[in-house]
Amino acid sequence: MSFVSLAMGGGGRLYRRLVEEYFLPAFANAELQKMNDAAVCGLSGDRIALTTDSFVVQPRFFPGGDIGRLAVCGTVNDLAVSGARPMYLTCSMIIEAGFPLEELARICTSMAETARQAGVQIVTGDTKAVEKGGCDGLFINTAGVGLFDSAQRILPQRPAVGDAILVSGNIGYHGMAILSARENFGFEPPIPSDVAPLNQIIDCLLRAVPQISCLRDATRGGVAAVLNEWAQQEQCHIVLQREQVPVAGEIATACDLLGLDPLYLANEGRFVAAVNAVHAQRAISALHAHTLGKDAAIIGYVTEQGQALVSEKTVFGANRIVDMPEGERFPRIC
Amino acid sequence: MSFVSLAMGGGGRLYRRLVEEYFLPAFANAELQKMNDAAVCGLSGDRIALTTDSFVVQPRFFPGGDIGRLAVCGTVNDLAVSGARPMYLTCSMIIEAGFPLEELARICTSMAETARQAGVQIVTGDTKAVEKGGCDGLFINTAGVGLFDSAQRILPQRPAVGDAILVSGNIGYHGMAILSARENFGFEPPIPSDVAPLNQIIDCLLRAVPQISCLRDATRGGVAAVLNEWAQQEQCHIVLQREQVPVAGEIATACDLLGLDPLYLANEGRFVAAVNAVHAQRAISALHAHTLGKDAAIIGYVTEQGQALVSEKTVFGANRIVDMPEGERFPRIC
Repeated sequence: MSFVSLAMGGGGRLYRRLVEEYFLPAFANAELQKMNDAAVCGLSGDRIALTTDSFVVQPRFFPGGDIGRLAVCGTVNDLAVSGARPMYLTCSMIIEAGFPLEELARICTSMAETARQAGVQIVTGDTKAVEKGGCDGLFINTAGVGLFDSAQRILPQRPAVGDAILVSGNIGYHGMAILSARENFGFEPPIPSDVAPLNQIIDCLLRAVPQISCLRDATRGGVAAVLNEWAQQEQCHIVLQREQVPVAGEIATACDLLGLDPLYLANEGRFVAAVNAVHAQRAISALHAHTLGKDAAIIGYVTEQGQALVSEKTVFGANRIVDMPEGERFPRIC
Repeated sequence: MSFVSLAMGGGGRLYRRLVEEYFLPAFANAELQKMNDAAVCGLSGDRIALTTDSFVVQPRFFPGGDIGRLAVCGTVNDLAVSGARPMYLTCSMIIEAGFPLEELARICTSMAETARQAGVQIVTGDTKAVEKGGCDGLFINTAGVGLFDSAQRILPQRPAVGDAILVSGNIGYHGMAILSARENFGFEPPIPSDVAPLNQIIDCLLRAVPQISCLRDATRGGVAAVLNEWAQQEQCHIVLQREQVPVAGEIATACDLLGLDPLYLANEGRFVAAVNAVHAQRAISALHAHTLGKDAAIIGYVTEQGQALVSEKTVFGANRIVDMPEGERFPRIC
């Protein structure tokens, strides 16, 4: 008998295997098979996007956010990267008996504020309580529905040779914030999460550059996981330019101290885009015009088809493979 | 400081207070305020129903079903009682490290079979793993989207004076199945859950009697909770006729043994309907024509407005109040 491991809950290879071996065959349908973050569902001529995400982050409150803000942003962002306009959220909580109501209230307030900020409504919910020890405090599931404007082009969600790879801001904040809050690294000032709703900046980008090939928020497994998934999906080679990857000084320092690579750290307010290089500068300008996008940068290119590979050119000119993360090195970061 | 209690996760008064004090104010919007099982969301002229439910049932496998079948039926039924045609489901799992993959596979298969039976698709999903002890095995969230046909009348979801109260079948099976499986009561043969998708029988009913006032599946808190919620909502008096309530012999015997009232036991394949008494016989005929409805019966009437009250006439002619269940006497039945 084999068992679920923590690694299978990460964004990496083992997670993918779990999904491919268990969920895809069981629930077999074309939409699920695409393994996009949100499903696009035909609806008598119109289309909605539908997504779901459960949140088990530990600690529940961290610099820059909390589990409630995360639960709203995570689902809003999954809808936004599908190209849909996030509209309606559901909220289901599993709560351990003995959980302080004050804390629950803080989390609800945070969810409500974040929903207002993102312009979405939480329209239905459900709560289960389990006995003490039945779960670790509080888990939140949010599912979401997004709408495609009828005139709108559906993103192909396929990177192509000749596409530039863009990242919408400096990376690694969420993963490092959770890690340092949990392990009490005591960075001063504390490193804040980047958790934020991305629908408005994505809307700006898509208006300026409707030709975008694909979008993905860089959560579990970080930018490295997104790029490896794209390379795998299209059997293409993506070449990163390491020195172009925007990393803030405090994240770079913390990564050096801890021996971590920011490419693998989770983000909750950053996305990766692929767009034909011809349009890349226009996309960067659109991103720079938004508060959340001021550090946006072109970090690489899709160079050829044939082999699924992500590699990087280091500052010293060497080529190095950027591997798919194996599993979740840091569980419960979302 | 006050704390979440197990009772707050039940279908009763304390659960309602939790929702009214924490979720409604925080997420304040008209659709949530209605506290229907599914939200009806405008969608550029069309409307969808949207619902969510988390499942933490213990044990995960029980006579007549398992957590997977329950997770699909629960959400399908929430959509069906809203009058919508269930279409798309999401599935998010929180899994404890060390959970056997074989069991996960069985659960996935069961979900897939139930989805096929109900005619819905599970179109997107998410999985989180937590460390050993972080949750009790496996929790499943399903959210669902249902569609309203454009010609279709939206149910008022308000009972009115002069309405008959119908129940779609004999009651108490799910609650008793879980309870006896958990406590090893050793009934022979074991009492099976009634867990089943209700969308087809509800479709039959609504085609035959479009005048239905309201529908609700009688899950946590049983038929007693549904009727008390309706009485509360409309400030009306509902009079039950105890001898008309369909209860199978094995459930009646088990209830007698354990000192339980089947009106308070959870069902996962039964619903309650209110419809003007003029149409009640036609509704019963429609229900009797379906396998799941062969024991359907008229069990009472909405007699007057003014006071929120559910009472019953016993077989001996006495009047007795049927109270709202206080909380969850039997946690984790779904």
